[in-house]
Amino acid sequence: MVLWEGRFAEKADALARRFGDSIGFDQRLVAAEIRASLAYAEALARAGLITAAEQQTLASGLQKIGGEFEAGTFAICPDDEDIHTSVERRLTELVGPVAGKLATGRSRNDQVACDVRLYLLGEATSLRERLIELFKAIVDKSEAHLDVIMPGYTHLRRAQPLLFSHWLMSFFWKFWRDLGRLSDVERRTRACPLGAGAFAGNPFGIDREALAASLGLTVAENSVDAVSDRDFVLEFLFWAALVQVHLSQLAEDLILWSTREFGFVELDDRYCTSSSLMPQKKNPDVLELVRGKTGRVIGHLVALLAVLKGLPSSYNKDLQEDKEPVFDAVDTLTLELPLAAEVIRTLKVDKDRMRAVLDDGMLATDLADYLVRKGVPFREAHHLVGQAVRRTEELGVSLRHLPYSEYRALHPAFTEDLYEVFDFCRSVEARDVEGGTSSRAVRAQIERAKALIAGQAFDSGCEHGA
Amino acid sequence: MVLWEGRFAEKADALARRFGDSIGFDQRLVAAEIRASLAYAEALARAGLITAAEQQTLASGLQKIGGEFEAGTFAICPDDEDIHTSVERRLTELVGPVAGKLATGRSRNDQVACDVRLYLLGEATSLRERLIELFKAIVDKSEAHLDVIMPGYTHLRRAQPLLFSHWLMSFFWKFWRDLGRLSDVERRTRACPLGAGAFAGNPFGIDREALAASLGLTVAENSVDAVSDRDFVLEFLFWAALVQVHLSQLAEDLILWSTREFGFVELDDRYCTSSSLMPQKKNPDVLELVRGKTGRVIGHLVALLAVLKGLPSSYNKDLQEDKEPVFDAVDTLTLELPLAAEVIRTLKVDKDRMRAVLDDGMLATDLADYLVRKGVPFREAHHLVGQAVRRTEELGVSLRHLPYSEYRALHPAFTEDLYEVFDFCRSVEARDVEGGTSSRAVRAQIERAKALIAGQAFDSGCEHGA
Amino acid sequence: MVLWEGRFAEKADALARRFGDSIGFDQRLVAAEIRASLAYAEALARAGLITAAEQQTLASGLQKIGGEFEAGTFAICPDDEDIHTSVERRLTELVGPVAGKLATGRSRNDQVACDVRLYLLGEATSLRERLIELFKAIVDKSEAHLDVIMPGYTHLRRAQPLLFSHWLMSFFWKFWRDLGRLSDVERRTRACPLGAGAFAGNPFGIDREALAASLGLTVAENSVDAVSDRDFVLEFLFWAALVQVHLSQLAEDLILWSTREFGFVELDDRYCTSSSLMPQKKNPDVLELVRGKTGRVIGHLVALLAVLKGLPSSYNKDLQEDKEPVFDAVDTLTLELPLAAEVIRTLKVDKDRMRAVLDDGMLATDLADYLVRKGVPFREAHHLVGQAVRRTEELGVSLRHLPYSEYRALHPAFTEDLYEVFDFCRSVEARDVEGGTSSRAVRAQIERAKALIAGQAFDSGCEHGA
Amino acid sequence: MVLWEGRFAEKADALARRFGDSIGFDQRLVAAEIRASLAYAEALARAGLITAAEQQTLASGLQKIGGEFEAGTFAICPDDEDIHTSVERRLTELVGPVAGKLATGRSRNDQVACDVRLYLLGEATSLRERLIELFKAIVDKSEAHLDVIMPGYTHLRRAQPLLFSHWLMSFFWKFWRDLGRLSDVERRTRACPLGAGAFAGNPFGIDREALAASLGLTVAENSVDAVSDRDFVLEFLFWAALVQVHLSQLAEDLILWSTREFGFVELDDRYCTSSSLMPQKKNPDVLELVRGKTGRVIGHLVALLAVLKGLPSSYNKDLQEDKEPVFDAVDTLTLELPLAAEVIRTLKVDKDRMRAVLDDGMLATDLADYLVRKGVPFREAHHLVGQAVRRTEELGVSLRHLPYSEYRALHPAFTEDLYEVFDFCRSVEARDVEGGTSSRAVRAQIERAKALIAGQAFDSGCEHGA
Repeated sequence: MVLWEGRFAEKADALARRFGDSIGFDQRLVAAEIRASLAYAEALARAGLITAAEQQTLASGLQKIGGEFEAGTFAICPDDEDIHTSVERRLTELVGPVAGKLATGRSRNDQVACDVRLYLLGEATSLRERLIELFKAIVDKSEAHLDVIMPGYTHLRRAQPLLFSHWLMSFFWKFWRDLGRLSDVERRTRACPLGAGAFAGNPFGIDREALAASLGLTVAENSVDAVSDRDFVLEFLFWAALVQVHLSQLAEDLILWSTREFGFVELDDRYCTSSSLMPQKKNPDVLELVRGKTGRVIGHLVALLAVLKGLPSSYNKDLQEDKEPVFDAVDTLTLELPLAAEVIRTLKVDKDRMRAVLDDGMLATDLADYLVRKGVPFREAHHLVGQAVRRTEELGVSLRHLPYSEYRALHPAFTEDLYEVFDFCRSVEARDVEGGTSSRAVRAQIERAKALIAGQAFDSGCEHGA
Repeated sequence: MVLWEGRFAEKADALARRFGDSIGFDQRLVAAEIRASLAYAEALARAGLITAAEQQTLASGLQKIGGEFEAGTFAICPDDEDIHTSVERRLTELVGPVAGKLATGRSRNDQVACDVRLYLLGEATSLRERLIELFKAIVDKSEAHLDVIMPGYTHLRRAQPLLFSHWLMSFFWKFWRDLGRLSDVERRTRACPLGAGAFAGNPFGIDREALAASLGLTVAENSVDAVSDRDFVLEFLFWAALVQVHLSQLAEDLILWSTREFGFVELDDRYCTSSSLMPQKKNPDVLELVRGKTGRVIGHLVALLAVLKGLPSSYNKDLQEDKEPVFDAVDTLTLELPLAAEVIRTLKVDKDRMRAVLDDGMLATDLADYLVRKGVPFREAHHLVGQAVRRTEELGVSLRHLPYSEYRALHPAFTEDLYEVFDFCRSVEARDVEGGTSSRAVRAQIERAKALIAGQAFDSGCEHGA
Repeated sequence: MVLWEGRFAEKADALARRFGDSIGFDQRLVAAEIRASLAYAEALARAGLITAAEQQTLASGLQKIGGEFEAGTFAICPDDEDIHTSVERRLTELVGPVAGKLATGRSRNDQVACDVRLYLLGEATSLRERLIELFKAIVDKSEAHLDVIMPGYTHLRRAQPLLFSHWLMSFFWKFWRDLGRLSDVERRTRACPLGAGAFAGNPFGIDREALAASLGLTVAENSVDAVSDRDFVLEFLFWAALVQVHLSQLAEDLILWSTREFGFVELDDRYCTSSSLMPQKKNPDVLELVRGKTGRVIGHLVALLAVLKGLPSSYNKDLQEDKEPVFDAVDTLTLELPLAAEVIRTLKVDKDRMRAVLDDGMLATDLADYLVRKGVPFREAHHLVGQAVRRTEELGVSLRHLPYSEYRALHPAFTEDLYEVFDFCRSVEARDVEGGTSSRAVRAQIERAKALIAGQAFDSGCEHGA
Repeated sequence: MVLWEGRFAEKADALARRFGDSIGFDQRLVAAEIRASLAYAEALARAGLITAAEQQTLASGLQKIGGEFEAGTFAICPDDEDIHTSVERRLTELVGPVAGKLATGRSRNDQVACDVRLYLLGEATSLRERLIELFKAIVDKSEAHLDVIMPGYTHLRRAQPLLFSHWLMSFFWKFWRDLGRLSDVERRTRACPLGAGAFAGNPFGIDREALAASLGLTVAENSVDAVSDRDFVLEFLFWAALVQVHLSQLAEDLILWSTREFGFVELDDRYCTSSSLMPQKKNPDVLELVRGKTGRVIGHLVALLAVLKGLPSSYNKDLQEDKEPVFDAVDTLTLELPLAAEVIRTLKVDKDRMRAVLDDGMLATDLADYLVRKGVPFREAHHLVGQAVRRTEELGVSLRHLPYSEYRALHPAFTEDLYEVFDFCRSVEARDVEGGTSSRAVRAQIERAKALIAGQAFDSGCEHGA
């Protein structure tokens, strides 16, 4: 069934049909299509455009179709252009011409916009739960390893001692922001285009407020905008791209740290593969793919931005290109988030190795801080310690073993207690401000995170619930 | 002055310096740098790390530097790598070695992250104001032209009659969502990285809460995250890209409608140019450039996403690439938003021309709706009118002039009152649901927009004020 | 069958498998996989690593598998990670352990790189043919409409009269450059990674020259580069993105010109759809989608660029992300190019309408040129005609009807013969330089294009043939 | 001077001028503008449109302007929109109204397209030289370190022993392909749009062949295409993005290998910086920025693709957005290529450290190959060695120390000579096919590279010379 065939003398070209039909991918919207159609039938009845009996007929037909899709028994016909045609065609088969009343004042333009919104809200809820699982994996792992000191890096160079848990918690906050951004996306996605018709509005006095409310949405305020607005799709794709960037950074750290050269962590075999040629290999495939798939999602975002650039007002067919990027981004993250959680949960942390590679150079800042506490301005202290570092290189010793006379020669503020600085634990504990790496501060961070997660679980129940 | 030169035997290569130095562009951060440094000096004094007199000395030095920049008398030295070095060097010249105390527990890593946030919050306030000006231009124009009926388009084909104001208001809602998104960006930008040091936290017991509060910010919760988090920059760039997409769509509509072929509007000469070759031309240069610059801002977003993909934890030099895209996006929108407002304000609307091109085909939906009201299911009604359209083409008449007998031959529900359908005004007024194109609904929309703008202006004063 | 399972105690996690397996999409490489494997078996035999009988066994097994795939009877097993595993597993079933000899010195790293190259070369040949079909449609249409003068546009404003054929031929040259670029991509794609092993080279003395030659390729010169080089994939994606940009511009022109407002061309019904709501609509869906899909292909290019950015040397799993973008770009253009050819072929050109909208303003440049021929410097002539245009606006007449006295008042070089300028045909014919719009020049252009196409068809046979 | 001001009653809005003027960045085209103008003056004289004396006057004026720009004494005026206006205005000041004759039949549309082509060809020559310098640095370094065996990696896991020179040469081939691609870009850039006028061609019988030839170009075949074709700019940006991807991969390897954890190479101090906070740090800033700037260039490519998508035929103002991305990409690579060459030239290679981290696991493939040579099919051999690897893990020994009895228990093909496999040098030398890591093969590779570079230098002289 083609919804518009009265108009033309000739049928569409077969290639053009294959090119233009979206049924191959928009089947995924079927649950949303059914739900929106049930709500619209209700709205038609409320407006007196169909009888209660007709509404009942339409509703039971629609529910049957939903069941067929779930059972996998729904048969797509060659003429089904898209999910809307498919459902209307099947509904006609099931309930007869009354099916045609469901189209009263409704266009595929407002329909598809509504479907994508409902679909995305459903997926957002599910992605939210996956994010929360990832939070828990991070927080649990952090809490269980509060005693692990590792070398902290900047520029991938050993910089200052750091609690492993502090490093790991840094990702909690990145993903936590992602959760907040997801809420923002959801908030703007909860607008109902139904009642916008093709673009000019509905001429049958449909109660859009009631219709939107029955779907848990608010009314989209302008019908021209309602059928063309894909901001929420772009926002979702940007959200997904940013989550991916965070995942890629986590993956990068873990790939590096699980090399033989770093040796800080070991990945569980289940998330690795070996080689078809080199039998000794243990490759971090899952993490590499997580990193690699960042490109894919960035690509999806760019794709839709380019589609929308310079597009004339209201509906244009180009908008059909909004769906595949979303579906693929959803699929990608739906797999990755639990995988990331499992990789973290099963990670083996090599505390001894991390300790072993801490070196005195990483306490150079602490040495400068020591001078600062003695009244030397930091810039001067930094310069003095820089000179001490050069002396250690010339003498082939570490800072801890640079003779006292050398320190004295640099500045009189160096006194015998300077050697107390060379204590990695002390260095870590010194950074005891909010957000610092001291065990107290990290513990506080973890508690805060737990409270946020708990609140989120509660919020979810209320605000974002089915 | 190079802040780190104690360490190396050899000076940096001249080409490497030219490649790595950011002073060429990060001078724009100077106001933020001064402001953050003043707050940090206060925090140092609060923590007893410097005396009140020293704080006073630093503060007056910093203010002097700010003044020099404003007056254009600040001289960059060849060794100034970046704005931080520049300011510290000059401060040392002005107040002597005590300047070196300002670096106590602070790193360029937390410093630059704080500067960019403060800078962006300032620009956001200014962009917000420009958006509000654009809102006003749209709303005023819409209100002044409520009597103009134009052909509404889908697929760039005449579709249904529409109020010009309804079309224009559709852009209000796009930009209104942009304003909401800007608030979301600002909310997440208001975090203070100061006190994160290089990445491990501050060892001098700085009160980060008080420090953040003195800058109108909240505390960034994890020091490793604090120095590497560029989410807020990406969010801003995505925001800018989405505003650009909306501007490009507005530009596209206006470019089309100001062609001789459409002829719906005339652009003011001041926003057009002529040709160096063809003296008769009047080219919509400003709108074309607005459309074109969408590519530029999308490019900036992609650039930073690619930079951040797969980057190891904490600070890496790659992050220096965050600034130029932001500066350029800010500059671009700072010019475009007021230009868009002016183009709308000075637009001449050719009501008569719009009326003249309305044709009966645009009432075909209304004709189908007529049948629906007589009890014909919409799908059947649609099909019947499709056949009527084909008949008009065969007979070379318009729907209004298709003989009654032809209609009757199609379906008995057609009765003489069918010809009442052929009234463009009636068609517009029929779409009287919320968000529809009826004059009542558009008027309501305008009132709602005005209330939102008024509320926004008020909010700005309180929440986002200087 | 998992090729590497000897190594690990535990099996891969089910979710990780689902995430990492590529068999879902890399089945498309099967023909290339078989072809490369046949060549590799030959190389093994040539090097004495397998017997002629073993080679025969492997060859007949591989051919059988190829047949099964073509017949659709090949059954993927749950443990088939990718097409290589699938084929090796099936080969083992068919010919026993000797199948394991095919893996001698070969890795999936060099294998997949070779497969993608062979696949792409095949698709390039097919896309080349489709481009040539498009050339023919353009040239035929241009040749058949050499008598049609249309308004030429810059900035979407009527600028100067133009032959319709000249406009259309402008697209020939864009697509012709695309063909040249495709040849460049093919040239660099014709490198054989086989013999690179995992990345260090083949230790069995395989004759890489002979192996490459048997596949119509040259030897990839460095084994580390050979397994990681995806330049050819990026080049192909960029090629596809650029073809898309050209298609989008053609689509844009035709969408505009087939509006009621322009009315220059009519699209064939077969490449249009109507509306589910508005029965009178005839929407240029195919062209809109062609335009829209540009975003998708740009997105694919960006995706792979982002994947490859900052990747460490040799093989990383991230590289698996190279295939889906290519497959989708191939599919997209494989449909679009013939559709574009058909749209052009079936296009109705409304010569009378184009003529009707030519206006005197479009001859303003000719009027300036007239003055130039009388010795007035062009800049002054341009200025004078600009003033004449303003006078026409003040007097409400066209240039042709501006009184002689007005012209004389502007400059004495205007004499009575000035009115001869107002001839659209003369204007077109005046631009008679190579590449200009005169009918002679356009005819020459068409002849040149025909010769190039003929040469190409001939080249194809020789240089790019099967 | 505004070239088109005769037409309008009102002057352009100041903000619109600031927004639209390109003089701020297109000054960089001045040399190309002068060169193209000299050629055009010659063409005008050849066509008898100006006298020889006039041509002389124009030429000397143009040369004077060129000199002023070089000397930095050229003064931009507030009304100079772009470089074309600037030059024409100044020329008028210098030589009077005859300057206006230079505009005969020429438009800024064909002018700017020609300028960008000439500019790019000049930069391509300079980038080509920089690439060749990089080749030399790579080849020299490779040749000097042929005795260094390093662990080769896949998935960033130690895989097989590799010559350091083989690794380094892998980048030669990547950049060598870039050189070939640059030639392709140059080939298509060498088309001359002059004579296309605004878009319809030149009406004064200019000899376009001679004009093009005088600039070392061929004739652009269609005037409509000639003024809108930006393919060559996109090609250049894609070229630059791909070079960047290669540079980012080189940078990534060197950043990793210069960590304390890998320790394979040491970067020269001149290409590193230290920290403003941590005095011991030596950060690979230059390489990090090289990696980071990849985002920027990818962004430029995306920007222009998005600009061009869906643009109507011939010239539109959006095209002005083509220049800044090109300038920035040129600047970026102009700095990076010599920096990359210097980083390689000054790199210290720690041969002993590389040797020290080779481990027996990296010879597992060789062990499987050993079995293959004894007649065991590779797949089975691979599986057997996989089991041996597991045994080594259980027993806590390396493959070399796994008792003979263990090997025998796995398969009878293991005989005492198996232990000869454990020789890293032998492993490297075994991979002796073309493109493999044996010292012979790498030496051959280096010789081939040298010959290619020599040929290139020669070609440059002839084909691409000034």
